[in-house]
Amino acid sequence: MKIFRVLIAILFIWSLNACERPAEQILRPEYAMAIHGGAGVIKAELMSPEQDSLYRASLLEALKAGEKILITGGSSLDAVTAAITILEDNPLFNAGRGAVFNANGFIEHDASIMEGSDKNAGAVGAVRNIKNPILAARKVMETSPHVFLVREGAEQFAALQGLQIVDPSWFMVSRQREKYENTKSSQLEKEFPLGEKHGTVGAVALDKAGNLAAGTSTGGMHFKHQGRLGDSPVIGAGTWADNACCAVSATGHGEYFIRYGVAQDIASRMIYGGQSLKEAADEVVLQELVKLDAGGGIIAVDKDGNICMPFNTAGMFRASVRAREEPFVGLFASDSLQLE
Amino acid sequence: MKIFRVLIAILFIWSLNACERPAEQILRPEYAMAIHGGAGVIKAELMSPEQDSLYRASLLEALKAGEKILITGGSSLDAVTAAITILEDNPLFNAGRGAVFNANGFIEHDASIMEGSDKNAGAVGAVRNIKNPILAARKVMETSPHVFLVREGAEQFAALQGLQIVDPSWFMVSRQREKYENTKSSQLEKEFPLGEKHGTVGAVALDKAGNLAAGTSTGGMHFKHQGRLGDSPVIGAGTWADNACCAVSATGHGEYFIRYGVAQDIASRMIYGGQSLKEAADEVVLQELVKLDAGGGIIAVDKDGNICMPFNTAGMFRASVRAREEPFVGLFASDSLQLE
Repeated sequence: MKIFRVLIAILFIWSLNACERPAEQILRPEYAMAIHGGAGVIKAELMSPEQDSLYRASLLEALKAGEKILITGGSSLDAVTAAITILEDNPLFNAGRGAVFNANGFIEHDASIMEGSDKNAGAVGAVRNIKNPILAARKVMETSPHVFLVREGAEQFAALQGLQIVDPSWFMVSRQREKYENTKSSQLEKEFPLGEKHGTVGAVALDKAGNLAAGTSTGGMHFKHQGRLGDSPVIGAGTWADNACCAVSATGHGEYFIRYGVAQDIASRMIYGGQSLKEAADEVVLQELVKLDAGGGIIAVDKDGNICMPFNTAGMFRASVRAREEPFVGLFASDSLQLE
Repeated sequence: MKIFRVLIAILFIWSLNACERPAEQILRPEYAMAIHGGAGVIKAELMSPEQDSLYRASLLEALKAGEKILITGGSSLDAVTAAITILEDNPLFNAGRGAVFNANGFIEHDASIMEGSDKNAGAVGAVRNIKNPILAARKVMETSPHVFLVREGAEQFAALQGLQIVDPSWFMVSRQREKYENTKSSQLEKEFPLGEKHGTVGAVALDKAGNLAAGTSTGGMHFKHQGRLGDSPVIGAGTWADNACCAVSATGHGEYFIRYGVAQDIASRMIYGGQSLKEAADEVVLQELVKLDAGGGIIAVDKDGNICMPFNTAGMFRASVRAREEPFVGLFASDSLQLE
């Protein structure tokens, strides 16, 4: 009789989780992590086999750096920071080195980070000389009484905190300079391949202690107005983490993501509306944002280790891993993961 | 029999609304509007009768300017803009002229505006020479492809749009300069009277067409770090408007208001959680923020014209009016309004 009851309980738990994770995994994974490197016009036919390999290897490198921290019991905050720092340093992505130029021909970075345990957060906007903006966002969170610093105020704070300051030319790569010069001479809106118009990098993680964290970093929108902030540094729009619920990092047309408070909206749908992570994330990204013609995607992990990475564009640079599972790396819609 | 049914229907509608508006008003008022001038240590014993009268008259002046637009069928966006512009120009409040000094001894303003019909929004942050930051936020919303501009980018944009640019000294009043000098010489955190530590101004309105709008403007936190943004320019934190739900403008310890996405959270509780405006606003301001020791308040109007103005501080400069009702003006907790 007791065995019968236990069996029913197991079947019940299995039925709750079947739609979002492999059937064999019933308990919360020890850790879970996902990263992204931007969403957009990312199509197989636009990439050489070498580019394809390079993007996959780069994403895997950042994911592994985060996972290494989680495996050994490190915090989700450290894992998110480590992965984003690597993506910022990698010139392939629109964040840190390799970021897009603004309409005035230079680079301004935005970044934010949030931890789920106490919803503490830090953000920097329109900063020009901080080598790793995500480290500055974290310093704002951990060592200042503030949450959000922009421009010189943020730059001076980062320097005082001992973060690496570089000459703005350090961020500029020839690929982005050419794109800037082309846009400037034609003054036309162009469709940029490889998701670089609104590219972003981000990471979310759940650690062994059950703490969630999220972070996002970007050079913003190609040819943007000087001083323009997108959703990446806006807590609630591009980044959100709450241990009661989920951690989210977004990438896409930032103006819409701010106006619809995308990251926070996904969490609110779960907390107040009782939706699952998958229901909430899919409804926001694949329905609400599509109605607005707002291209982009999000990565998210919930408190039970479920991972969702929906996007409404041709592709999204993304990768994820959970304890005792093989890492997944995807660029296109055709790269599918069982748990997606 | 039919009359009996109609009576029951009327009684039912009355019962739904009784807790939030005077019993005699069953239908949505033609328009509704509320404004605030900051929350904080606002106590009768700290004010002279002359100061008391001056604050009340100033709030009434701003409210009346907004109401005048609503009466004649103007938009909630215009009403909110008009009221905030007046409060910015009034040196009594921490916004525009009369704003607090930052730790470097100058003034940086933040403002944002949002309309409920399409959730369009505009914001400026850390701007130093725009006479009316709320007008700049509105220009960003209406004439740029962006939502959020900061520092020189925002200042250059405002100048190009023909907005009035002033010398930074225009904003500086002796009261705030003295406070800055005192803090600088003592390097002590002080409790400032009259809600000036985190003061803000804001307005929310519902117009005859059923459109909601919200706006917020501030000089930020006294002695803040250069480049610090609070919740006022952050859509979702200090400002939110959605015709499906409500319009909210917040004032208080901005860092907490960002981390808890206060304005958007009130709307989410209504939309996904089925709470009334009063339930949602009271729970956030009087329970959640109190747990965090995050002082402040909000003003809100919902799509049915209900007005809520909860605050967890000693007082909040506030005023409200609805069609065919006398305007209400309050400074302290003891100033009570039947509908509050």
